[in-house]
Amino acid sequence: MTQAKVRKGEMSRARLLQAAASEFAAKGYHRTRVSDIVRQAGLTQAAFYLYFESKELLYQELMDRFFKKLWELSDAGRKVTPLKSHEVQSRLKENLLDLFRFFMEMPELTTIVLTQTEGEDLHRRLAGIVADNLRRNQEAGHVKANLSVEVTAESIVAMLYRLTIRYLLTGEKTAEQLADEAVALLAGGMLQS
Amino acid sequence: MTQAKVRKGEMSRARLLQAAASEFAAKGYHRTRVSDIVRQAGLTQAAFYLYFESKELLYQELMDRFFKKLWELSDAGRKVTPLKSHEVQSRLKENLLDLFRFFMEMPELTTIVLTQTEGEDLHRRLAGIVADNLRRNQEAGHVKANLSVEVTAESIVAMLYRLTIRYLLTGEKTAEQLADEAVALLAGGMLQS
Repeated sequence: MTQAKVRKGEMSRARLLQAAASEFAAKGYHRTRVSDIVRQAGLTQAAFYLYFESKELLYQELMDRFFKKLWELSDAGRKVTPLKSHEVQSRLKENLLDLFRFFMEMPELTTIVLTQTEGEDLHRRLAGIVADNLRRNQEAGHVKANLSVEVTAESIVAMLYRLTIRYLLTGEKTAEQLADEAVALLAGGMLQS
Repeated sequence: MTQAKVRKGEMSRARLLQAAASEFAAKGYHRTRVSDIVRQAGLTQAAFYLYFESKELLYQELMDRFFKKLWELSDAGRKVTPLKSHEVQSRLKENLLDLFRFFMEMPELTTIVLTQTEGEDLHRRLAGIVADNLRRNQEAGHVKANLSVEVTAESIVAMLYRLTIRYLLTGEKTAEQLADEAVALLAGGMLQS
């Protein structure tokens, strides 16, 4: 194949992935047919099967990419541990901003993952990753010693889920606004001391 | 009717309500039949229709009772406003404790409401009540002036939902433990200042 043909093939493949993400988010996995995906992508059923063996395998590829990035972002608390204490809050904000920006780059997959997939397992796995980093950051003196890391991790995950669904995916707040407002609450709490 | 008969009737009615709550929580509203409820209550189908016109009306009664109390408890932030600042944190803890204790008194209905009913509407309504009280408490100088009351309210509701499902209903933590741990995070945040 020529370079131009390879590039065209990659573009068609990317269009199918994008179209599928949008259809899955709108209708759910089971109600989405290959015909819906190709119509949305402006391609033919034959083109679909040139790039993907089945709807199942396309879905799996979308999810694998999404989760690879999600695990990386949920582990970002790791970057806080070696910092000096005055750098911690702005790093925490950067971490939230990276997460919210990733969700906004892939709003369809974010909707699927936060609302349609196996909620309890995902929530526990994310909270587990966050808890490990909180523990390290508690030992490093960044996170308050009197907090339960498990309860804090579960609370953070629940809060980020909800703020994403309520404000980010609805377009009511930008990633920057939301990261600012969430970090103010998380870092310093709500009561005037 | 004699007093004894009235009392017996009230007990049967209460047993049916309790049995129904437990069946609804386990199977969902639609898959629960009147025959499941009476079997669980150790009563007859005829007894059921002595006290309730239908499964629908029994369910409505359970929900009305539950929500009456839930609105009252979600509005408890109101009690904080007139306090002196050193009393605020312990009142906040009492409020969370009242809420968690109520959930533990009615674990079946709590499960139904937090996981099976119209999630988005309920979440928004609860967050609205909490936001109103946060606004008053911000004006009173109890809640930090730099916080978004809407984001804080949504975060609080999401966190309390999750901690209830994850730790309280599973029996992993008592209402007291959870109120202590949640208030430490909410009041003062997670970062060492």
